[in-house]
Amino acid sequence: MLETTIAAIGPLDEPAMTAARQLQARLTKPAGSLGVLEDLSVRLAGLAGVCPPPPLGPAAVAIFAGDHGVHAQRVTGWPQEVTGQMVANFLAGGAVVNAFARQAGASVTVVDVGVATPLPVPGPTDTDHGADRPDVPRLVVESVRRGTRDMTVTAALTREEARAAVEIGIRIAGELIDAGAGILLTGDMGIANTTPAAALIAVFTGVDAAEATGRGTGVDDPTYQHKIEVVRAALRRHDPDPDDPLAVLAAVGGLEHAALTGFVLGAAARRVPVLLDGVIAVSAALAAAALAPDAVGAMVAGHRSAEPGATIALRRLGLIPLIDLGLRLGEGTGALLALPVVTSAVRVLHEVATFDSAGVAEK
Amino acid sequence: MLETTIAAIGPLDEPAMTAARQLQARLTKPAGSLGVLEDLSVRLAGLAGVCPPPPLGPAAVAIFAGDHGVHAQRVTGWPQEVTGQMVANFLAGGAVVNAFARQAGASVTVVDVGVATPLPVPGPTDTDHGADRPDVPRLVVESVRRGTRDMTVTAALTREEARAAVEIGIRIAGELIDAGAGILLTGDMGIANTTPAAALIAVFTGVDAAEATGRGTGVDDPTYQHKIEVVRAALRRHDPDPDDPLAVLAAVGGLEHAALTGFVLGAAARRVPVLLDGVIAVSAALAAAALAPDAVGAMVAGHRSAEPGATIALRRLGLIPLIDLGLRLGEGTGALLALPVVTSAVRVLHEVATFDSAGVAEK
Repeated sequence: MLETTIAAIGPLDEPAMTAARQLQARLTKPAGSLGVLEDLSVRLAGLAGVCPPPPLGPAAVAIFAGDHGVHAQRVTGWPQEVTGQMVANFLAGGAVVNAFARQAGASVTVVDVGVATPLPVPGPTDTDHGADRPDVPRLVVESVRRGTRDMTVTAALTREEARAAVEIGIRIAGELIDAGAGILLTGDMGIANTTPAAALIAVFTGVDAAEATGRGTGVDDPTYQHKIEVVRAALRRHDPDPDDPLAVLAAVGGLEHAALTGFVLGAAARRVPVLLDGVIAVSAALAAAALAPDAVGAMVAGHRSAEPGATIALRRLGLIPLIDLGLRLGEGTGALLALPVVTSAVRVLHEVATFDSAGVAEK
Repeated sequence: MLETTIAAIGPLDEPAMTAARQLQARLTKPAGSLGVLEDLSVRLAGLAGVCPPPPLGPAAVAIFAGDHGVHAQRVTGWPQEVTGQMVANFLAGGAVVNAFARQAGASVTVVDVGVATPLPVPGPTDTDHGADRPDVPRLVVESVRRGTRDMTVTAALTREEARAAVEIGIRIAGELIDAGAGILLTGDMGIANTTPAAALIAVFTGVDAAEATGRGTGVDDPTYQHKIEVVRAALRRHDPDPDDPLAVLAAVGGLEHAALTGFVLGAAARRVPVLLDGVIAVSAALAAAALAPDAVGAMVAGHRSAEPGATIALRRLGLIPLIDLGLRLGEGTGALLALPVVTSAVRVLHEVATFDSAGVAEK
């Protein structure tokens, strides 16, 4: 499935982008005055292969949840059970991502790709919780294993496990698109998951562990220094080859990172835009871009996470974040905040009058 | 009316802000992880005087339109008739502000405070166009004079004209709030209006004309240098006293700038948040803050305009823009893009579970 997905990913459509640039120039506004939104509208036309691109259909957030063996290295002050507890919170509709998704009218799908602790949710309805109610969060259990191994000791995943997680992401993307989603949003949950994200960013961009590593949910100075050393130790142990992205995901990744890699590829293969959330998403996006460079054409950077690695990854991907408000929550919250901006960028191409049609004089 | 409005403006409510900070700390997310949104929610609680503040009610954009005598100095390549033509475009629903307002569910009120040319819209229904249809833009004609005088030759307005425009803004704010608006958004239209905005910013912040002046809709290098000299000449001629804000508005302001000053004051007096658009709005906000320093508590910076003076003004006001995407269109477009972020900030306080209620462990 991974190979056929990669093979389906192609470049943006140049004629559609040219048509979008020409249309932007005829609309009743000074040329270029919508800044980043104009470039975004051009890319979305290129992805759709038509100008204007169709209005964005329903939005769907997928929150991939997993745990991390490297938690044992004390890289965070949060207990590991919080991953499963937050999954329960997502399903109950009580988290920030739920509040933002309700506002945006986006569906929420929680995918357990590797939560360590048993999920504290009712049993029989686990796998189809709310499947028929788009406003009710849905749980999909596709656990590859109950958390990764400690990457400072051994590879976090086998290559087969990494591939399995990637393919779960591809499948979830396809299912959401088949169900009518016109834009996918990345979400994630996993206590300690900024540590593997930093390792992935260091591998794929070549920066030092100290540059790629941030304070995550807000660790103190000694823990931060220790976290950098943990990332450094993992990189030294595995020295992963960035030209073998599955090997990188296996060595120093996480199950949610791998699944998000597939989710991005799955969106790109279907030429549906995928709105990236924070540092976990952009670390996975680097892996997706390494597997299929044209996948970047489907990516829209939702926001600039406060994590320094996120900025490094966005620069490498050539993406400009739409929201930059110091968020560092994850879950998909930054992507959801950016969703109305993406909708607006497309709407301009459909609804704004031209100088000719409105009888407005030009410069 | 101006004096009673100023007298009604008070500081943010400290107990409500303390309660909002305490509530944010109990919600199921790492402390501070919503970045700027947390501070925004605290300020909105302080403005409402209660925590959580009520969910934002309907949003209303007012686009104040006026022309400028300084247009004769060739500070822009656009003909002056475009102001009136764009008013017609707003009323027909064809401008970017209309597309964004439809998306946000915001009403649009266009206020002619001083358009130079006759408005090319049907006669008899001018003053109540769409008044009973919130989705149809409404025109209010309150023309103080058909454009300002050339500020390089004489004062742009008399003190009485400036006051009249300010009081129109106060009245429009009150009417929109009486009609149910829970948040006001600033909009503006006026060919050449970045020139008086630059002058206002220079006066109220003390920076040089060259720092406060930008390229507006995109003038070339010679016109840009000339525009700086025009601003400098006006400042030298009038040398307005920043401690007499009405005198500043009269000397180097515009009718839409003065009306927006009143609009901001009117919102603050009613303790309703006012979402500022771009450089015209923030130049008017400086005048409002000079008249009533506590008015800043009601202001939310929608976006950072590409105009350099906007950043200078925002820094002086101590406001962090919610959107920063290189927009330089005006009309209220940047404020509308930011509206969902403000809604989200309030929604968090209403809808997100606490650690206790959700059974999530803490750090």
